[in-house]
Amino acid sequence: MDLSLQDRASTLIEALPYIQKYYGKTIVVKYGGNAMVSDELVEAVTSDIVMLSLVGVRVIVVHGGGPAINKMTEALGIKTKKINGLRYTDQATMDVVQAVLCGQVNKNIVNMINTRGAHAIGICGMDDHLIQAKKLDKGDGIDYGLVGEITAIDPTIIGTTLMSDVIPVISTVAEGIDGNKCYNINADTAAAKIAASVHAEKLILMTDVRGVLRNPKDENTLIRQILPSEIPYLRQDGILSGGMIPKVECCADALEHGVKRTHILDGRIPHAILIEMLTHRGIGTMIWKGENNNK
Amino acid sequence: MDLSLQDRASTLIEALPYIQKYYGKTIVVKYGGNAMVSDELVEAVTSDIVMLSLVGVRVIVVHGGGPAINKMTEALGIKTKKINGLRYTDQATMDVVQAVLCGQVNKNIVNMINTRGAHAIGICGMDDHLIQAKKLDKGDGIDYGLVGEITAIDPTIIGTTLMSDVIPVISTVAEGIDGNKCYNINADTAAAKIAASVHAEKLILMTDVRGVLRNPKDENTLIRQILPSEIPYLRQDGILSGGMIPKVECCADALEHGVKRTHILDGRIPHAILIEMLTHRGIGTMIWKGENNNK
Amino acid sequence: MDLSLQDRASTLIEALPYIQKYYGKTIVVKYGGNAMVSDELVEAVTSDIVMLSLVGVRVIVVHGGGPAINKMTEALGIKTKKINGLRYTDQATMDVVQAVLCGQVNKNIVNMINTRGAHAIGICGMDDHLIQAKKLDKGDGIDYGLVGEITAIDPTIIGTTLMSDVIPVISTVAEGIDGNKCYNINADTAAAKIAASVHAEKLILMTDVRGVLRNPKDENTLIRQILPSEIPYLRQDGILSGGMIPKVECCADALEHGVKRTHILDGRIPHAILIEMLTHRGIGTMIWKGENNNK
Amino acid sequence: MDLSLQDRASTLIEALPYIQKYYGKTIVVKYGGNAMVSDELVEAVTSDIVMLSLVGVRVIVVHGGGPAINKMTEALGIKTKKINGLRYTDQATMDVVQAVLCGQVNKNIVNMINTRGAHAIGICGMDDHLIQAKKLDKGDGIDYGLVGEITAIDPTIIGTTLMSDVIPVISTVAEGIDGNKCYNINADTAAAKIAASVHAEKLILMTDVRGVLRNPKDENTLIRQILPSEIPYLRQDGILSGGMIPKVECCADALEHGVKRTHILDGRIPHAILIEMLTHRGIGTMIWKGENNNK
Amino acid sequence: MDLSLQDRASTLIEALPYIQKYYGKTIVVKYGGNAMVSDELVEAVTSDIVMLSLVGVRVIVVHGGGPAINKMTEALGIKTKKINGLRYTDQATMDVVQAVLCGQVNKNIVNMINTRGAHAIGICGMDDHLIQAKKLDKGDGIDYGLVGEITAIDPTIIGTTLMSDVIPVISTVAEGIDGNKCYNINADTAAAKIAASVHAEKLILMTDVRGVLRNPKDENTLIRQILPSEIPYLRQDGILSGGMIPKVECCADALEHGVKRTHILDGRIPHAILIEMLTHRGIGTMIWKGENNNK
Amino acid sequence: MDLSLQDRASTLIEALPYIQKYYGKTIVVKYGGNAMVSDELVEAVTSDIVMLSLVGVRVIVVHGGGPAINKMTEALGIKTKKINGLRYTDQATMDVVQAVLCGQVNKNIVNMINTRGAHAIGICGMDDHLIQAKKLDKGDGIDYGLVGEITAIDPTIIGTTLMSDVIPVISTVAEGIDGNKCYNINADTAAAKIAASVHAEKLILMTDVRGVLRNPKDENTLIRQILPSEIPYLRQDGILSGGMIPKVECCADALEHGVKRTHILDGRIPHAILIEMLTHRGIGTMIWKGENNNK
Repeated sequence: MDLSLQDRASTLIEALPYIQKYYGKTIVVKYGGNAMVSDELVEAVTSDIVMLSLVGVRVIVVHGGGPAINKMTEALGIKTKKINGLRYTDQATMDVVQAVLCGQVNKNIVNMINTRGAHAIGICGMDDHLIQAKKLDKGDGIDYGLVGEITAIDPTIIGTTLMSDVIPVISTVAEGIDGNKCYNINADTAAAKIAASVHAEKLILMTDVRGVLRNPKDENTLIRQILPSEIPYLRQDGILSGGMIPKVECCADALEHGVKRTHILDGRIPHAILIEMLTHRGIGTMIWKGENNNK
Repeated sequence: MDLSLQDRASTLIEALPYIQKYYGKTIVVKYGGNAMVSDELVEAVTSDIVMLSLVGVRVIVVHGGGPAINKMTEALGIKTKKINGLRYTDQATMDVVQAVLCGQVNKNIVNMINTRGAHAIGICGMDDHLIQAKKLDKGDGIDYGLVGEITAIDPTIIGTTLMSDVIPVISTVAEGIDGNKCYNINADTAAAKIAASVHAEKLILMTDVRGVLRNPKDENTLIRQILPSEIPYLRQDGILSGGMIPKVECCADALEHGVKRTHILDGRIPHAILIEMLTHRGIGTMIWKGENNNK
Repeated sequence: MDLSLQDRASTLIEALPYIQKYYGKTIVVKYGGNAMVSDELVEAVTSDIVMLSLVGVRVIVVHGGGPAINKMTEALGIKTKKINGLRYTDQATMDVVQAVLCGQVNKNIVNMINTRGAHAIGICGMDDHLIQAKKLDKGDGIDYGLVGEITAIDPTIIGTTLMSDVIPVISTVAEGIDGNKCYNINADTAAAKIAASVHAEKLILMTDVRGVLRNPKDENTLIRQILPSEIPYLRQDGILSGGMIPKVECCADALEHGVKRTHILDGRIPHAILIEMLTHRGIGTMIWKGENNNK
Repeated sequence: MDLSLQDRASTLIEALPYIQKYYGKTIVVKYGGNAMVSDELVEAVTSDIVMLSLVGVRVIVVHGGGPAINKMTEALGIKTKKINGLRYTDQATMDVVQAVLCGQVNKNIVNMINTRGAHAIGICGMDDHLIQAKKLDKGDGIDYGLVGEITAIDPTIIGTTLMSDVIPVISTVAEGIDGNKCYNINADTAAAKIAASVHAEKLILMTDVRGVLRNPKDENTLIRQILPSEIPYLRQDGILSGGMIPKVECCADALEHGVKRTHILDGRIPHAILIEMLTHRGIGTMIWKGENNNK
Repeated sequence: MDLSLQDRASTLIEALPYIQKYYGKTIVVKYGGNAMVSDELVEAVTSDIVMLSLVGVRVIVVHGGGPAINKMTEALGIKTKKINGLRYTDQATMDVVQAVLCGQVNKNIVNMINTRGAHAIGICGMDDHLIQAKKLDKGDGIDYGLVGEITAIDPTIIGTTLMSDVIPVISTVAEGIDGNKCYNINADTAAAKIAASVHAEKLILMTDVRGVLRNPKDENTLIRQILPSEIPYLRQDGILSGGMIPKVECCADALEHGVKRTHILDGRIPHAILIEMLTHRGIGTMIWKGENNNK
Repeated sequence: MDLSLQDRASTLIEALPYIQKYYGKTIVVKYGGNAMVSDELVEAVTSDIVMLSLVGVRVIVVHGGGPAINKMTEALGIKTKKINGLRYTDQATMDVVQAVLCGQVNKNIVNMINTRGAHAIGICGMDDHLIQAKKLDKGDGIDYGLVGEITAIDPTIIGTTLMSDVIPVISTVAEGIDGNKCYNINADTAAAKIAASVHAEKLILMTDVRGVLRNPKDENTLIRQILPSEIPYLRQDGILSGGMIPKVECCADALEHGVKRTHILDGRIPHAILIEMLTHRGIGTMIWKGENNNK
C-alpha cells in the first residue's frame, strides 16, 4: 500500500476540522513594507489569501507601502522630515502618499489576487466613510502634519464586499473629519481597528522576523504564545522592544475589542498563513487571551 | 526552515481547490457487505464521510447488510433458498431483512456518524415514498419472492435532509406499489438510481477489491478509467466478470442519468474516499464519460 | 327539504372552528402495545392521523411495541428477566428491541400512513440525536441493564420533518451518552418529553381502557377532567392505580412543561381521536390546567 | 358505545378531504336580490361564508341590491324607466344606485361578516380600477343610459385582500373609461368575469329556485349537471328560459375562461353552500365541463 | 445663460431633500365639508395627493361630507335635529349618512384619484374593523342618537393598502361594538386617531381659513407655530375659539400619540399641501412639540 | 396670495413625474478633463449627483483626469509622446496614470460626494475584473504602448454597490487580459460600455461646450436632438467634427446596446444635470432613437 497516500490523508484529516472551523469566519491580514520585498514572498502570501478565500474564509487585506512612497517622493524631490521617529506629512507628501498607496500599491495587490481567479476590490479609508480620522495629537505639542488618528470605523462597505465573496484590499488613507480632506494612518493600527470593527476571528500581522524572540539573535527562542497580562513584564525585561512594541500593542488592542486571536507571522516563510491556520503546529507568536485553549 | 511544513502546505494547496470544487455538491457512497467486515475499516469510512460533510460536501450513504441478515436468519432457523444466484425472499425472510437492515445495520451506521459529531438520520425506501418497487420479473418465469425492482425514486426526503446539513443513511427496503408491503432491493442498484435522482456529482461503490484489474491476480494491472463505450469489449475479453459486471453496469446507468463520475473503490484502503476526492492521484477505477477532462 | 343534510351541516358547523383552531398546531399521539392489537383499530387510528394531517394539523406519532418484541425474543430463545416490574434489558435483548421497534414496527406504521396518501418517515431516538439518554438509576441500587432515562431531547429533526408536511413516526430507542450505544426508553415518557420539547398543543395517550374510572368496573364513572392538583387525592383514594399512575404522571409532566392539554383515550373506540378533537363532546379523560376554559 | 359519535365521525371523514381540497382555493359567491329577502337566509349564507373562510377557503362575495335601490328611488320620487326589460339608468338614478349599493348594501354585508369574527372589506368596481366599463351598446340603437358593459377586470386589489385573509365584498358599480364616471353593471356577469380573472375554483350563483328544473312545477325534476354543449338543446326545449338563461350563460362564460365548476344554488336552503362543498351530495345545478369527474 | 432655469434648479435643490425625507413616510390628509366646495380646489388637492404618492409618500385620505348629506336628507324630507351644536343622528339619518359618505362622497374621491393614474380604494370604519366605536356619552345625560366615540382603531387594512402602493380613502362611519351596527364619527377626530395608530409623520387638516389668526380679520396675523403648552393661553385670550378649538385639540391629541407634526392648512390656496411639504416656507399653522427643530 | 409660491408649486408639479420616472433607474455621468476646471463647476456637478442619489436615482460616475496626469508627468520629467493624436503610454507613464487617476482624482471625487452626506466608493477597471482590455490595435501597425481597448465589462461590482445605495466612482484603468497588468482606456468609451452593461436609462457626457452646434460660433444654433441615422450626414456637412465625433459615436454605440437616451451636456452651466433631468426643457444635445417620444 502507498504510504505517502496515508501521509496526505493524515494531513487532510488534520486540516479539515480547521477548514470547517474557519468557514465563513473573517480574518484580517496586514502586510506591507518589509514583508513585500521579494516577489516570491508576495506571490506566496497572495496565493495563501486566494486559497483561504476559496474554502470560504472571509479575508480582509490591509496594506502599507513605505518603500513605494519613498521612491516617489525621491523622484519628485520631496524632502522627508522625521519628528520623533514619525514621518512629518505635509500636503505635498500627503498627495504622494494618497496617489501611491491608493492608486499604485493597492491596485497592484488587487490585480495579483484577481489574476489568480479570485475577486478583490481595492478601497481606502475615504471610500464610504470606512476610516474616519482627525489630526494626530500626542499631547506633546508637536505638529505631525497630516498624520491622523482614527476616530471611527464604518465597516459597512467591508460587509457588503465580503457578502459578495469579494476580498477587500484596504489602503490606510483616512477621511478627515476636522476640515482636512484626508490623513495618513499607521497600517498596523488600522488593521487592528478594522479587525475589531468586524469582530474578526483572527488578526495576522506579517513581518520580516520570526516573531517575538527571547534572544533576538536566536530564532529557537521564539515565544509561541503571549497573554496580554505578560506584555508589561516582557517590555520591562527588554524582550519586547523597538518596532515590535507597537505591533504587540495593536494585537492587545484588537483582543480587547473582541478579536479572538492575533498573530505576528514571518512573511519570509512561504505559506506561513496556511501553515498557521490549517495545521496543529502554529508558527510565529500568538497573542491571545487563552480562554478557549483548543489550539 | 521546517521542510515538513512545506510538504503539508503543498498537500493543502493541492487539496483546497478540490474542497472548493465539491463544496455543496452531492455524492452517494454505497458500502456494505464485505466492505464492512473489519471495525477499523468501518471507522475509516465513517470518518471520511464525517470529514467530507464537515467541509460542505453533501453525502448520502446507501448500505447493504448481507452478513447481519444471514446471522439473524440462522438464529431463527430460516433456510435461505438461492435461485440463479439471487436469494429467494419469502415473507418470513423479508421480515428479518426489514428488521435487520432498517432497525439494526442502519441505526448502527447513524450512531457511528453521530457520535463523531455529525448529524445523520436513518431511513429506508418506505419512508416518504423514497424507493418504490414492484415484484422482480426478469422475464425468465422464475419467482424470486419479495425481491423487487425499482419503479420510481422520490428524493424529496433526501433533499430536505441534505438542506438541513443532515446525512441521510438509506436501507434499500422499498415500498411496494403492487399490493405487497415492501421489497428487498439490491443496494448497488438503489445507490445508482438515488444518485441519478439527485443529480449527484459522484457515485462511489465501496468494494473489497482494488477496482477492475486486467489480471485479477496482479493489483498493478488496475484499470484507472473506463468509458461506457469500453464496457462491452472488457466483458468480451473476460476482464469484467462475476460480481464486477453488475457494479460496472450500475455505474454506467448512473452516468447515463446525469451523474458526473462513478468510482469503484477499495474499502480496504483506509481513507480511500478522501484520497480519491482530495488529491491529484485517484485510486480505484473511475467509470465516466470523459468529457470534462480536468481530473 | 332533506333533514339529514341539515344534520350534516350542523356537524360541520360544529367541527369547522376546531379545524381552524388546530390548523398548524402540533399534537403528539402515542399508541402501541395493547392499543395495537386489532387490525381494525390500527386502521382507524391511522386513518384519523392521516385526516388530521390533511387539514393542516401537525401530528407526531410515538409508538411502543411490546408484543412484537416478545414474539421475536421468544423465537430467538432469549429469556426475559423482570426486576420490580421492569424488563431487564441485556445486550442481546437490546439488539432485538432495536431491530423490532426501529426496523419492523416503525416502518410498518410508516407504510400504513403512506399507503393512505400521506407522507411519513420513521425515525428513532438515535437519529440526529433526537432522544439522548443515560443508564437508568432509580437510586435503588438495582441494575436494569440497558433501560435508559432521558437526559435531553433535540427536536430539530422533528421540526424539519413537520415543516415539510411529513409526519414523524418515532421509536423510543435513545442514543446513549454515557458509553453505551443506545437505550430502551418507556414510550409514554418519551411521548411526554417530545410533546414538551415542541410545545405541542395536545398529547394523546391511546390505551385500552375508557380513561380514568372512579369504579373500574363501570365505564359510566369515567372522570372527564383532572387537574394536576387533584392527582395526589386520586392516588390516595385508590382511583388512580397500577399502570394508570405513570400515564397520568407523564401527562402532568407534559403540562408542567408547556403542553396545553393531555388526554388518555380509549383506542378501542373507532376514530376516538377525531371525535375528541372535532366535536363538542370530549371522550376519555383530559388532564389539563383548566385555565383557558373554552372547551 | 355511542352511535351518534360514529355518525359525526363519518360526516367528518367525508368532509375532511373536501376541506383539504379547497384549502387555499378561491370561490366566488354571488348573492343578492331575491336571495336576500329573509334575514334568516342572509344569516345562513353569511355563516357559510365565514365558515369556509375559517378553514382556508378564499371567498369573494359579489352582490346586487335591486330591492334596496327601488326603495330609495321611490322615496326620492325618481321614476324608473324600463326598456326591453333593462332599467334605463339616468344620472340621478345612477347616483342612487351608487349610494345604495356601495354605501348601504355593501357595508351591511361587510358588517354581518365582520361581527361573526371574520374579516371583510367592501369595495366596488371603481376601487383600484377593479371593474372597467363603457356604455352598453347592444347594437339595437337603444340608449340604456348609464348601464355599462365590462371592458376589463383588474383583480390586483382582490389578490391583495385575499392574501391578507380578508374577504372582499364587491358592489358592481364600474369605473367608466369613456368619459362617464361610473356605470351600473349586472351582478351575475360581474361575478362570472371576476371568477375568471382570478382563476376561481368555483363560481356559485345563489338564486331563489332549486336550480334548473325540467318541469318548473316539480323540484324532483332538478337537473344536477349540465355540460356547456347541452345548453342550446335545453334552450330549444324551453327548459332553460326567462332569467335562468343569462345565469347559465354567465356560468358557461366563466367555464370558458378557466373556472373549474359553476353552480346555481337555492339560497332558500339553509347552509346550501356548505352542503354543496363539503358533502358527497351536491344540491342545485352544476354547470361544468365534466373533465375531472371526481365529484 | 437662462436665468429662469437656475430658478427652477434652486426650487428643485430646495425640494429634493424634503422629497427624500418624506420618502416612504405616512401622512394623513383630512379634507371635507367647506374645503370641498369648489371643483378647482378639489382638483388641486387631489392633484397634490397624487403627486406625493408618485414620489413615494404614503398618503391616507380621511374625508367628511356635510353638504352632500344635507342635500340627501332634505331630498328625503328628513328633519335634522341639533342638540348642543351636534347633529342628533336617528336611524333614518344614519342610513343616509352611511349611503352618502361611504357610497357617494368616498367613491367619488377614489374615482378622482384613480382617473389621475394613481391607485386608491375607498373604505369606511366598518371595513376590517378599522374604526370601532360606542354610543357617545358626554356625561351630560343627553342622547345624541347614533353619534359615536371611537374605542379602538385597527389599522391592519391601512397597512396592507399602503404596502401595495394604494391610497386608502376613508369615510368616518364606525363599526358599533355595543349592539348598534354603526356610528357617525367626527372626521377630524377620526383623522387624528388614525394618524396616531399608524405613527404618521404628519397630520394635515384642510380648512377654509388661513390657520390660527391673532386677529381673525387680518390674515397677516397668522400664527405659524403653536406648541401644545401654548394652547390653554391661546384659548384664554380668545384667539382660539369656535370650530378651531376642536381642530387644535385633535392636533394636540395626535402629537401626544406619536405623530411628529400637525398642520391646519387653507384648502383655498391651490397646492397648499405641496408648498407646505416641499418648500422651506411653511403656510398655515403648524402645531408641534418643537423638539426636532429642523424645519 | 403669494404668486412665487405658485411658481414653486408649478416647478415641483413639473418635476415630480420625472422624479418618479427615474426612481430606481440607473444613469451614467462621465465628467473629467475640461469639465473639471473650476471648483464651482465641480461643486455643482457633485451636488447634482448627490441630489439625484437622494431621490432614488442610481448614479454611476466615470471620470478622466488629463490635467492632473500632465502635472505629475511633468513633475517627474516624463516626456509625453503623441502618435496620431493619441498619447503613447509607456510603462513609466502608465504607472503615473494609474497612481494619479485611481489614487488621486478618483478618491478626491469620492471625498467630495461623501462630505455632502452621500455614500460613494472609488474603484477602477482592475477591481473585481470590472473592465477587461487588450492592447489597442487600430490595424494601422502603430504601437500605442499601454493604450488599451475594452474586451469585456463585468458589472457585478457596480450592481452590488448600487444595491447598497452607494455611488460607484470609476477610473478607467483596465485589467489587462493579454499579459500586461493594466491599460489606459478612453473615459468616454468606457462610460458608454459601462452604461450598456447595466442597461442604463441615460448616459450623460459632460463637456465644455453647449452641445452640437450648427455654427460653432453661435450657441443659438444648438441641435437639440440627433437620431443615429443623422450622424453620417452631420459628419458629411462638417457640423460634427474634431473631438465631438468620438463623443457622438460613443453615444450611438450606447444606444445600440440598450441605453435609452444619451446626452452631451455643458458642464459650464451650473446644475445642468438637474435641469436636463427634472424639467420639460432639455439643454444640450440628446442623441436617441426617438421611439418613446414622451420627453
